[in-house]
Amino acid sequence: MSDDLRHMAHALRLGRRGMGQCWPNPAVGCVIVKEGRVVGRGWTAPGGRPHAEPQALAMAGEAARGATAYVTLEPCAHTGKTPPCTEALRKAGIARVVAPLADSDPRVSGKGFAYLRSHGIEVTTGILAAEAARDHAGFFLKVERGRPWVTLKLANSFDGRIATATGESQWITGPEARRAVHGLRAAHDAVMVGAGTARADDPALTVRGWGQVRQPVRVVASRLIDVPLMSRLASTARDEPVWMIHGREAAAMTRKAWASCGARLLPCDVSGGRLDPEALLSVLGGQGLTRVFCEGGGQLAASLLAADMVDELVGFTAGLALGAEGRPGVGAMGVDRLSEAPRFVLEETTRVGEDVMHRWIRPRV
Amino acid sequence: MSDDLRHMAHALRLGRRGMGQCWPNPAVGCVIVKEGRVVGRGWTAPGGRPHAEPQALAMAGEAARGATAYVTLEPCAHTGKTPPCTEALRKAGIARVVAPLADSDPRVSGKGFAYLRSHGIEVTTGILAAEAARDHAGFFLKVERGRPWVTLKLANSFDGRIATATGESQWITGPEARRAVHGLRAAHDAVMVGAGTARADDPALTVRGWGQVRQPVRVVASRLIDVPLMSRLASTARDEPVWMIHGREAAAMTRKAWASCGARLLPCDVSGGRLDPEALLSVLGGQGLTRVFCEGGGQLAASLLAADMVDELVGFTAGLALGAEGRPGVGAMGVDRLSEAPRFVLEETTRVGEDVMHRWIRPRV
Ligand SMILES: NC(=O)c1ccc[n+]([C@@H]2O[C@H](COP(=O)([O-])OP(=O)(O)OC[C@H]3O[C@@H](n4cnc5c(N)ncnc54)[C@H](OP(=O)(O)O)[C@@H]3O)[C@@H](O)[C@H]2O)c1
Ligand SMILES: NC(=O)c1ccc[n+]([C@@H]2O[C@H](COP(=O)([O-])OP(=O)(O)OC[C@H]3O[C@@H](n4cnc5c(N)ncnc54)[C@H](OP(=O)(O)O)[C@@H]3O)[C@@H](O)[C@H]2O)c1
Repeated sequence: MSDDLRHMAHALRLGRRGMGQCWPNPAVGCVIVKEGRVVGRGWTAPGGRPHAEPQALAMAGEAARGATAYVTLEPCAHTGKTPPCTEALRKAGIARVVAPLADSDPRVSGKGFAYLRSHGIEVTTGILAAEAARDHAGFFLKVERGRPWVTLKLANSFDGRIATATGESQWITGPEARRAVHGLRAAHDAVMVGAGTARADDPALTVRGWGQVRQPVRVVASRLIDVPLMSRLASTARDEPVWMIHGREAAAMTRKAWASCGARLLPCDVSGGRLDPEALLSVLGGQGLTRVFCEGGGQLAASLLAADMVDELVGFTAGLALGAEGRPGVGAMGVDRLSEAPRFVLEETTRVGEDVMHRWIRPRV
Repeated sequence: MSDDLRHMAHALRLGRRGMGQCWPNPAVGCVIVKEGRVVGRGWTAPGGRPHAEPQALAMAGEAARGATAYVTLEPCAHTGKTPPCTEALRKAGIARVVAPLADSDPRVSGKGFAYLRSHGIEVTTGILAAEAARDHAGFFLKVERGRPWVTLKLANSFDGRIATATGESQWITGPEARRAVHGLRAAHDAVMVGAGTARADDPALTVRGWGQVRQPVRVVASRLIDVPLMSRLASTARDEPVWMIHGREAAAMTRKAWASCGARLLPCDVSGGRLDPEALLSVLGGQGLTRVFCEGGGQLAASLLAADMVDELVGFTAGLALGAEGRPGVGAMGVDRLSEAPRFVLEETTRVGEDVMHRWIRPRV
């Protein structure tokens, strides 16, 4: 592997540490290399600021002079709440910048590279571009289409059931799978469930067991906000964010009650008696979310799948069968022909504890 | 790895070539090693005869004198249709026999080892015994409990469906998965389906694309033999065996018609309006089958699972969701509580073409 490849892979690994932690900003990694030695490392801080580059430059100090900076996304050239990273790289004396691809934010796209080149800094692009595009896919979707990346989780039995007929659903998958789910929550900006799950399970939807992390926003989709106020979500809405996405017809009283618990209320268009999946994701994108982790239930999963709004599937399959009376993990989708069902491409399959974990990506042209 | 381990692993690999090919006999492998060199190799021939040992001895010739024979099961000591293998080993001058475990056939168990020892041949047991026990599990089940090992296959969508609401089921999984299914058929003595599948799909249930193999017996379970005579199974019953398992109340006319097509008719007890799963497997064990591959459909799968008669699960999962209107891969099981559902232990998970293959074993005490 060439040095450029190796250092960029390193920068990508660092960048991934920020996934789910720095929205609305992209999770960027940066490695500064002088004469073959890594002299600085950084990744976007929780909350999105400081960016990766100034942190890596601060670590490198004087060693940055004449060094190469590997950055997983085009450095920003616009003055936002902080001075642009391009300026910081120039001032520190960086001689060369290696970045896989241009930012798709129109305020930045191409401008960062142009600034660097115009100041005599060599710019190399294209290295590990596909990997970087995957890592930043949520950020790009938000910028380009105004909606976040959607990962749908399904934890089910060998025959695709998430609960017995009597509703028993605890411990279908094992502790390692549950721990992995918490890790997935931490790598997303928000965790979303339908009202049915919020009512049935009274979930906390927080990340537990992964140390100090920025907790994901907890999103509940419910047209009339049909979720009890005596719930974990309501009672903890001041500790970590809770967002209620609802139809405009939701009662003012209910909205007020949730708002006074600390929840944010987000009105959304309705179609066919349900929150419109596309509108729902636009609302979330509009709030700055880049990656949303949907944990069901079956109805919300089905409507997102049917609208082809799911970008990634993560399945956890356990070694038991519950039979056709068990509750299905995906509700009615209205798919008559196989050719109508969106196809996903297998990314990986592996054992997680006693269960199988399989991850799939929806190819988009 | 010690030499004994290495040679036994080799013998086990050879033995597996006979799986599905040599019932009612066990699929045994044999390697003969002289001064560190492999001088003979053999495995049970299609149909179960000749055994592995005489074939390996024939290949070794004079080199067998003073050599070690690695055999994956205790050599037979009784005179059946061929002279016993213990005698052949002694006559060839074998000095040492390494075998993982004793045969569980009461005509043989321990007697083979005793014969060898009494003739001054050193006997070592226990090496890779767990692996050998797994390989011979079907044979042992047949001998000890009178029923074959049952492998249940399920090829379904991400959400556990085997067909859309309109019944479209072709090409849920890809060509590599279908090829793997034919390989699994070849490694079993018989392929079994319920009457519903026989009616709906008119399947051939033969092995295609795996060269010259002994074709598995094709078994259909149907109380009243409710399968059309204008079917592939009926029209090919003279080429490869077709067995109809049916209730005693099946009409004499129907039985006669199938018999005259070349099918074997096997009466079986009924319970709750269905062929009794335990009785059904006893009938198959009584016919000498050691490994049965059940390919569904949903009702037969559910009744075998509910009776805890499934020893191995093989799942092929495709990257698409069909929704709750799709046909379930496992029918109603009558499981209310998670603790009632038999748990399987994950053996392996791997990519097969575009799909996930996962294999699970039912632990038995
Ligand atoms: N084992 C697991 O992994 C797991 C995970 C999650 C859930 N579960 C189980 O699943 C069950 C709940 O699933 P569920 O299917 O009944 O409920 P759900 O999908 O969680 O919620 C469905 C509700 O969400 C609201 N909604 C708003 N917009 C929607 C849209 N576009 N599409 C669909 N729904 C929308 C609707 O309620 P409004 O009328 O209020 O808008 C709808 O009734 C529970 O038993 C839970 O325990 C299990
Ligand atoms: N994608 C796949 O991998 C796949 C594989 C197989 C099937 N399929 C689909 O599955 C559908 C057929 O499934 P199915 O569930 O309707 O039928 P099935 O399980 O193949 O057959 C059920 C029938 O088998 C007979 N039977 C005898 N003993 C039984 C027992 N102990 N338990 C259950 N059944 C017993 C009964 O008929 P009698 O009254 O005649 O005894 C029963 O109605 C078809 O649409 C087929 O295309 C798909």
